[in-house]
Amino acid sequence: MIDNPFYSHEFHGDYDLISVGRLDLEEGGSIADCELAVATFGSLNEAKDNAILVTTWYSGTHQIFRDVYIGPDHALNPERYFIVVINQIGSGLSTSPHNAPDEISMSHFPRVRIGDDVVAQERLLREHFGIEQLQLVVGGSMGAQQTYEWAVRFPGKVLRAAPIAGTAQNTPHDYLFGKALMEAITSDPGFAEGEYKSNVDVVDGLTRHAGIWAVMGFSTEFWKQEVWRALEFESKEAFMEGFLEPYFTVRDPNDLLTMAWKWQHGDVARHTNGDLAAALGRITARTFVIPINEDMFFPVRDHEAEQKHIKNSELRVVDDILGHLGLFGVAPGYMPQIDQHLGELLATKV
Amino acid sequence: MIDNPFYSHEFHGDYDLISVGRLDLEEGGSIADCELAVATFGSLNEAKDNAILVTTWYSGTHQIFRDVYIGPDHALNPERYFIVVINQIGSGLSTSPHNAPDEISMSHFPRVRIGDDVVAQERLLREHFGIEQLQLVVGGSMGAQQTYEWAVRFPGKVLRAAPIAGTAQNTPHDYLFGKALMEAITSDPGFAEGEYKSNVDVVDGLTRHAGIWAVMGFSTEFWKQEVWRALEFESKEAFMEGFLEPYFTVRDPNDLLTMAWKWQHGDVARHTNGDLAAALGRITARTFVIPINEDMFFPVRDHEAEQKHIKNSELRVVDDILGHLGLFGVAPGYMPQIDQHLGELLATKV
Repeated sequence: MIDNPFYSHEFHGDYDLISVGRLDLEEGGSIADCELAVATFGSLNEAKDNAILVTTWYSGTHQIFRDVYIGPDHALNPERYFIVVINQIGSGLSTSPHNAPDEISMSHFPRVRIGDDVVAQERLLREHFGIEQLQLVVGGSMGAQQTYEWAVRFPGKVLRAAPIAGTAQNTPHDYLFGKALMEAITSDPGFAEGEYKSNVDVVDGLTRHAGIWAVMGFSTEFWKQEVWRALEFESKEAFMEGFLEPYFTVRDPNDLLTMAWKWQHGDVARHTNGDLAAALGRITARTFVIPINEDMFFPVRDHEAEQKHIKNSELRVVDDILGHLGLFGVAPGYMPQIDQHLGELLATKV
Repeated sequence: MIDNPFYSHEFHGDYDLISVGRLDLEEGGSIADCELAVATFGSLNEAKDNAILVTTWYSGTHQIFRDVYIGPDHALNPERYFIVVINQIGSGLSTSPHNAPDEISMSHFPRVRIGDDVVAQERLLREHFGIEQLQLVVGGSMGAQQTYEWAVRFPGKVLRAAPIAGTAQNTPHDYLFGKALMEAITSDPGFAEGEYKSNVDVVDGLTRHAGIWAVMGFSTEFWKQEVWRALEFESKEAFMEGFLEPYFTVRDPNDLLTMAWKWQHGDVARHTNGDLAAALGRITARTFVIPINEDMFFPVRDHEAEQKHIKNSELRVVDDILGHLGLFGVAPGYMPQIDQHLGELLATKV
């Protein structure tokens, strides 16, 4: 257990740690007392039928949704819906390598799959809030993986689904990208096979990891047009040093690795003996598949190939020069598009 | 000086080491006796007006041109043209950190720019072969950078130019990609700040470097469609271990770093106080700009933006799912397209 002040209420505001008890894992082993960090917005109505679940991405937490995606001016409107953001296992706020009890801490943390998160989330919503059905499940990137897993695994519980910039079955290219990210961390001598004393010991590896994100996370055009100037940086180096590097270096290396492995292995076709079309065919939710047009590693065509297998679905492409990290909602044009799509989706009768 | 058997006639067949004497470098310093490894195909005619120059890319040598691009069935036809392939400085065959005399060997090797290569190449062609004008300069990737540099710096000497999958001014995204590649090498403790005893000491870093190439060098669709099966590998892991990793691990780390820095800093606008349009406006060669449609880091639009500034030019897009490393000529459809474009270009009157 490492004391990393980044994973605290001071940095992340209000959230509750809610235990779902023992979580047996797909890959074997278990988490004896799995705690999920949950932030909610709005009120659950008496019928308990106004809930929306938001899932989190690699390195992300509820924070970005609170600050950017959720509000009375957004489709994710807490005045109408009870919005539950559940931080994924390994996020650093929920049970994660750096905060787990000794027997599963650090390098001993078990492998967790997207399906484990979704099982834990379903249990939490049902047992803690009494929520049996969701108006919408929405998430970006790894959050899209969880969204698909929800829609395939619990079709009766998901009325609408909005996977943004992510796929139901991870691609081999994405697997290799994840591998490069992981190796940037594990190759740092300070990583000490996962038994470092502080994330600061691994700052070089985490910085290289940020450097690979710079190449794949933003589009070629983001860099060419120097879009970072709009964020008030004076050079791409200043943007890296002032934004993308610290974004990752404050985080826990083992936590990132837990998420990266999970991301690499996301695949709803586990439920159907490898038949992706059959897995996606189980989805009954009204689904908007929402890629970002400049995404370097979750390209539009990969979304389209999956969307075609989903009965009640549409492809809604978001235009954002930031590429994948458009998810941060930095471009002025991004959230209006997301709100448009989610608003229309929520307005559909199901 | 390191004895690396990869950089030998055994592995690279026939080539000549030709000295161009002292080469003073743009960034300061000099190479006292700069030797360029040169492979020629065909015969120089008496008028010395049938010469074609082929320039080399990052990690590439004359070998790939000899084996894939040049032949009686190709546009680069040695029965019609005298084809000179000059291996770039830092290639490992020409003067490079691993083979340089002590005072500039290994970590002491000076920074070399694309312009230095082109100055050395021009001198070699003129002094050694008596060639004053070229029917064509052609090269891919860093070879495209050299092609542009030739056409801007020596417009009277270049009748035709064919930059393939590369730009005249390196992009910031490419700069960051290069940085990630370099850091994969320099972060290996075995690199020892450039004073390793053998490339084998840096095998981990070189392997990670190959892993980043896997992500950016091929397209997402190359991996998704498992195109490596056509190369008789059974898995993407086998393809990495049997092809892409050994491709890089045999090479010298300092040599790769010399080329990577050069690539990062390629920019013909050095000649015109940063005005790219003005630099490209100097080109008089009939120019075909030839991007590969699936290229992840030299995308078509970056080529198009430059091509528009070249008076006598056309954009000729090659369709190849391999992406940037389509340059290897592995896909059956690649060379016919290249031959078509180069053949048409060579047939134009100038």
